Amino acid sequence: MTTAPSAPTDRTRVRRNANYADYDSATLHAIIDTAWLCNVAFHDGASTHCIPTACWRDGEHLYIHGSNGGRLTRLLMKDTQACVTITHLDGLVMARSAFNHSMNYRSAVMYGQFEAVDGDAAKRASMAAFMDKVAPGRQADVRAGSDKEYAATTVMRIALTEASCKARTGGPHDDADDMHIEAWVGVLPMALTPQAPVPEPDCGVATPTYVAAWYA
Amino acid sequence: MTTAPSAPTDRTRVRRNANYADYDSATLHAIIDTAWLCNVAFHDGASTHCIPTACWRDGEHLYIHGSNGGRLTRLLMKDTQACVTITHLDGLVMARSAFNHSMNYRSAVMYGQFEAVDGDAAKRASMAAFMDKVAPGRQADVRAGSDKEYAATTVMRIALTEASCKARTGGPHDDADDMHIEAWVGVLPMALTPQAPVPEPDCGVATPTYVAAWYA
Repeated sequence: MTTAPSAPTDRTRVRRNANYADYDSATLHAIIDTAWLCNVAFHDGASTHCIPTACWRDGEHLYIHGSNGGRLTRLLMKDTQACVTITHLDGLVMARSAFNHSMNYRSAVMYGQFEAVDGDAAKRASMAAFMDKVAPGRQADVRAGSDKEYAATTVMRIALTEASCKARTGGPHDDADDMHIEAWVGVLPMALTPQAPVPEPDCGVATPTYVAAWYA
Repeated sequence: MTTAPSAPTDRTRVRRNANYADYDSATLHAIIDTAWLCNVAFHDGASTHCIPTACWRDGEHLYIHGSNGGRLTRLLMKDTQACVTITHLDGLVMARSAFNHSMNYRSAVMYGQFEAVDGDAAKRASMAAFMDKVAPGRQADVRAGSDKEYAATTVMRIALTEASCKARTGGPHDDADDMHIEAWVGVLPMALTPQAPVPEPDCGVATPTYVAAWYA
């Protein structure tokens, strides 16, 4: 844990297992940059919703996009406060007692209000950053978004000003009184892992670098 | 997609890509049963929160647990409506145009109100179901929860009565006008994959079946 760039607010201060908290922006950036999806939660006046959607980062903002007519877009653009959560699950932690079992993870929770990215150039630059995250170098290979496609799409961003991260690593924390118990103890790790690419039957081009690198 | 056991409500009816929707309970069960974590979103009167937490299923309920004093527990037990979301990401879908790129996924969104699982026997049975999900057969090896541990813990469940699933599979859906474009097209799959178990240095027991099966 390094020095926090900004003090936690009442909403972002981690209370449970506060020693797992991390308010450093480099930690936050790494969690966003290795995520494909975030969960966007918001209240529409009647109900709370939580919608998974693709995300990327540029500087001190997290970006998402949606169809203009979609519920997520319409509601987020109505001055709605949002909470965005990303979690990477790294493993199951096996302890000598049932209640000391745990999970290893890296998570981020961000609060704030999304704003639309206005202007054709800014929208195109944002979507270019997204494509660069998905597949570096691919942009030159595909048809760019048309004016009609851009006109039907809202690109939105939320500032990373009120956020906190939480992470757990390592093995179990057993009670001293439990150390005699003869159970297997340790971590069952897991990772979101690239699998072998599946080209379309009509894919007629050689494997580009970014596809080969996917499953090297 | 099979016949829905219950009609979607205004909150659960899928509008975007409605052909990806699935209201079948078998699909919902499979999404929960293969998830370690869910995201619980709720509004506390001032802010919307979205918190990742471990989940499991028993029959037609999704279960979570938390410390009695934790914010999540305290707020969910105050007649708070919740939205629970689970998403499994299966791959990046590479199309011939930027806007036809997509992701393959299986997601579930559940609405309702959590209720506490009351009574010592019911709480113990619920937590036993959780341990059986984490590591079948492990329960006999570890110290069971003490009365003090159970007294400090709230087990909560939400009925799976207002829920919808959405899933995308397969390759890109390109526009007819784009078929001449010479870009690599297909899917870059990914999966949350077990990695080699990491025993604690002081783990003195032989590898049990459920650990060997983790990374077979």
